[in-house]
Amino acid sequence: MSIHKHKIAVIGSGAVGGFYGSLLAKSGCEVSFLIHSDFENISKQGLKIESIWGDFGVLPYSKETLNNDKIFNPNSINSCQAYFVNDSKNFNSNIDTILIALKSTENLSLASLLKPFESISIQKKLQIVLIQNGIGQELLIHELLPFAKVYAGLAFLCSVKKSPNCIQHMDYGDLTLAESSKEEAACGVGAEMQTLGKLLQKAGIPITLEDDLVLARWKKLVWNIPFNGLSVLLNAETDRMVQNQDSLTLVRDLMAEVQLAAKAEGKLIPTSFLDDRVNKTFSMKPYPTSMKLDYENGRKMELDGIYRSVLERAQSSHTSLPNIKFLFHALEYLEKNKSTDKK
Amino acid sequence: MSIHKHKIAVIGSGAVGGFYGSLLAKSGCEVSFLIHSDFENISKQGLKIESIWGDFGVLPYSKETLNNDKIFNPNSINSCQAYFVNDSKNFNSNIDTILIALKSTENLSLASLLKPFESISIQKKLQIVLIQNGIGQELLIHELLPFAKVYAGLAFLCSVKKSPNCIQHMDYGDLTLAESSKEEAACGVGAEMQTLGKLLQKAGIPITLEDDLVLARWKKLVWNIPFNGLSVLLNAETDRMVQNQDSLTLVRDLMAEVQLAAKAEGKLIPTSFLDDRVNKTFSMKPYPTSMKLDYENGRKMELDGIYRSVLERAQSSHTSLPNIKFLFHALEYLEKNKSTDKK
Repeated sequence: MSIHKHKIAVIGSGAVGGFYGSLLAKSGCEVSFLIHSDFENISKQGLKIESIWGDFGVLPYSKETLNNDKIFNPNSINSCQAYFVNDSKNFNSNIDTILIALKSTENLSLASLLKPFESISIQKKLQIVLIQNGIGQELLIHELLPFAKVYAGLAFLCSVKKSPNCIQHMDYGDLTLAESSKEEAACGVGAEMQTLGKLLQKAGIPITLEDDLVLARWKKLVWNIPFNGLSVLLNAETDRMVQNQDSLTLVRDLMAEVQLAAKAEGKLIPTSFLDDRVNKTFSMKPYPTSMKLDYENGRKMELDGIYRSVLERAQSSHTSLPNIKFLFHALEYLEKNKSTDKK
Repeated sequence: MSIHKHKIAVIGSGAVGGFYGSLLAKSGCEVSFLIHSDFENISKQGLKIESIWGDFGVLPYSKETLNNDKIFNPNSINSCQAYFVNDSKNFNSNIDTILIALKSTENLSLASLLKPFESISIQKKLQIVLIQNGIGQELLIHELLPFAKVYAGLAFLCSVKKSPNCIQHMDYGDLTLAESSKEEAACGVGAEMQTLGKLLQKAGIPITLEDDLVLARWKKLVWNIPFNGLSVLLNAETDRMVQNQDSLTLVRDLMAEVQLAAKAEGKLIPTSFLDDRVNKTFSMKPYPTSMKLDYENGRKMELDGIYRSVLERAQSSHTSLPNIKFLFHALEYLEKNKSTDKK
């Protein structure tokens, strides 16, 4: 009989979810990826991960390996196995953890994607890790699966989809976990989160456990607010933005406004943290942000998740954020006019 | 003997100076254009003006017409004559008025361009009309020619250089005159300005006389600050910017900051004036602003004249202008990175 393996469902198997899910598969978890596009191809070929931490392949489970409960393909030390499904109904019915790494622009589809998990989440403590930018999105998960344990996963990761079945991991990869409560209160670091953290750490992911999700989210926005939006508006990669004094002024002003908005919610971010994010970006490999890639590829940008939600929260605390507001409206304009402008 | 004709030198014979100068030539003034590039061609072929007020040509004076003192070419009712020079030393020594319509980015060259006028400006009341965006540039003229009478000419004009010797006038054309003093005090409307106004009006230019140059300059900036910069940043023509709610929000916020900066200098601009500028732009033909044309053609943008000067003035009155500051730094970034970005 086989030892119980931690069963993970990955919803949003792109550059982020595909990467973390693959690391978990490689470390011995039973991972199932929900694949929307290119299912035919990926369910046969699997995924290839080109990573600064070492390349490897994720092959689809074959009947044989299933029966033998072998995880690694004996022909290749650098490969592991996983399931690929094209409908969330086809996930294993006994999932322990769901990793959601959908773009926040796709959150409307979460209701139907999480429907099949309703009954498990009542029977057992289902864990959900939402790896997503922005602030406040966990509330949607609490609404859809009220009995699940919800964590935010804040990824500091540079990765891109190189081709339909190849993910390129270029830099960093740190994941911060924080538990979410419906009331947005600080939840502390419980035993269950520690166990989840160890599982992820075993997969080679540098993990930080945070006791206050809202603070952690604001800290993430310190980077996302300036770099995502400016990369689109200025047509610039990250390196240029910190090397040029004018864009660095914009970065700094935007960061200071995130700090201010967080403070209005009682979440204090020290200025040294802002400096650190700038310095980290300075030594980061030149990186087109996910928003820039979305814009260039005609996909919807995460403007509601990253910018609108921040402006709305600030409005209710009467905090003026003119730089973030400027950036948001400029990006909204570009979003609406891109089809005609880019041709 | 010929009647004395008003002698005008045009420095900066582009879409603005070339247009107004040509109208003055057509109305009977003796106009000399300083031509930098394409002198060979223009001094032979003259200029063509394609205008919503009627097309016409400006032919170079020929020896015959000079001797006969005929202004109009008898072969063409739609043409007039002018001089074309390629060095400011070659201007007629008895100039009455200099029309300066150089881009503010070229103001460094004014010292040498105005040098030949030093002695006339002491002998007689030389008039200078500076048609230029921004604020505070007249002070440079006072410094170079302290005895001259200096006027600001604020053009609300949509015109472009269609080819080296063809100017296309697409919309509007209003010119506001205001007298400048070294102390930036309101000068009122004197008799000399009235005469100058009549001369321009006779040429078909809709003229407004303002008693307060600094107020007039701030009013001009109400349009220039938002539309010039945003047209570059958002890659948009004027019509799109007022039709889309996000860009209109940016336009409004920027206008409100110009109003605020003017107020800090004691210059009150009513909000109805801002509304009027938005409405005028709504009914304007789609127009790529001069800054957008400069950016696209690899020319320097007028960022110092239009933005930096405003931010510096606001700084000394401790007025915070976050939207203008954001726009300025974004444009400065684009200016410095355009050579690599645009290729």
